[in-house]
Amino acid sequence: MNAYAPTARTKVKRLPKRGQYDRETVHAVLDAAFVCHVGYAIDGQPYVTPTAHWRHGERVYWHGSSASRMLRSLKPGGVPVCLTVTHIDGLVMARSAFNHSMNYRSVMAFGTAQQVVEPEHKLQALEAFVERLFPGRWAELRPVTAQELKATTVLWLDLGEVSAKVRSGPPHDDEADLDWLCWAGVVPIGLTRGLPIPDAHVTPGAGLPAYLAQ
Amino acid sequence: MNAYAPTARTKVKRLPKRGQYDRETVHAVLDAAFVCHVGYAIDGQPYVTPTAHWRHGERVYWHGSSASRMLRSLKPGGVPVCLTVTHIDGLVMARSAFNHSMNYRSVMAFGTAQQVVEPEHKLQALEAFVERLFPGRWAELRPVTAQELKATTVLWLDLGEVSAKVRSGPPHDDEADLDWLCWAGVVPIGLTRGLPIPDAHVTPGAGLPAYLAQ
Repeated sequence: MNAYAPTARTKVKRLPKRGQYDRETVHAVLDAAFVCHVGYAIDGQPYVTPTAHWRHGERVYWHGSSASRMLRSLKPGGVPVCLTVTHIDGLVMARSAFNHSMNYRSVMAFGTAQQVVEPEHKLQALEAFVERLFPGRWAELRPVTAQELKATTVLWLDLGEVSAKVRSGPPHDDEADLDWLCWAGVVPIGLTRGLPIPDAHVTPGAGLPAYLAQ
Repeated sequence: MNAYAPTARTKVKRLPKRGQYDRETVHAVLDAAFVCHVGYAIDGQPYVTPTAHWRHGERVYWHGSSASRMLRSLKPGGVPVCLTVTHIDGLVMARSAFNHSMNYRSVMAFGTAQQVVEPEHKLQALEAFVERLFPGRWAELRPVTAQELKATTVLWLDLGEVSAKVRSGPPHDDEADLDWLCWAGVVPIGLTRGLPIPDAHVTPGAGLPAYLAQ
């Protein structure tokens, strides 16, 4: 039942010193996810908070509104965090319970979380967040007010120490189990988007934007 | 860009003292997920590990193979953890960046992780894990050996202090923004299963089991 023993494992420590392929893997895993899980500890008590994130170069940003405990504990030097992103790609079904697994892609990033202070930097980060999901939408939106910007917290972490793990492919059964009378293989799993649902107030003329049309 | 400010929020503290509805919400969120993210801290450094989990009554179990750091730090009294499960249900697109959000369901459970020690308890827990995903599969598998059981680590956490959060429904724009010329609504998101892919060794006669047919 070794559900998280990857067969193809990429460990990337001190990312900037590693090759392009590893960095691309880390970026791709981060970029394909809507949310990450940010872990931090206060007085030895761990907290794991789901939060929307986005990447710019070798830096990951996330939205801090739900992490108020963490924000209160933020010191000038930052706070140690572990930011994890996980995609489940399939259920891997072997002929023994022990060899069952999952196909997945995950990234763990360790470092010190910092708060974005300068309003201009914060605005740029938020624009990148919206544009990552919906290219072109930022310009369509009612502009951000100074008050809203002040009420929004953005945190960041440099991609220094990063670990990527990927498992893909069929189950790996023991040789002796291969003729066991039991179905074995992979059930693919993935996130899919459904058809956009307009709200009750959509203005005539505000049709479905290109970034939402398939 | 209040991506994690839920409009409908259920806080369940000290779960067993709360109503049936809240407990059902917590259970449903836990049961609908393939993996959780377990957070723990060692010497102030947080770690967030994705792991397959399953629930039995008011207890959550998870597979400990990937948490070796944590296992090494396990003391007889257990180790404080935060176990978080998150489902992303939709991208909530408002007319201002500030009012963008996500529809989601999440549970955070706090407590002390314990390791399953008794082989019989471990075997029962693993059976529950397999049966939760694939009812009827356990009996079809090549039986677990004593060696495999020994090599498998199962951890558990009682659902004592639990917090559930749910956001659903359309965006909540400022009244003054409602006639802004911009599409607004929800893009649904969800996990879907694809068609099962048999491996190269499937024995003639080991057809697709009922628990995988649709």
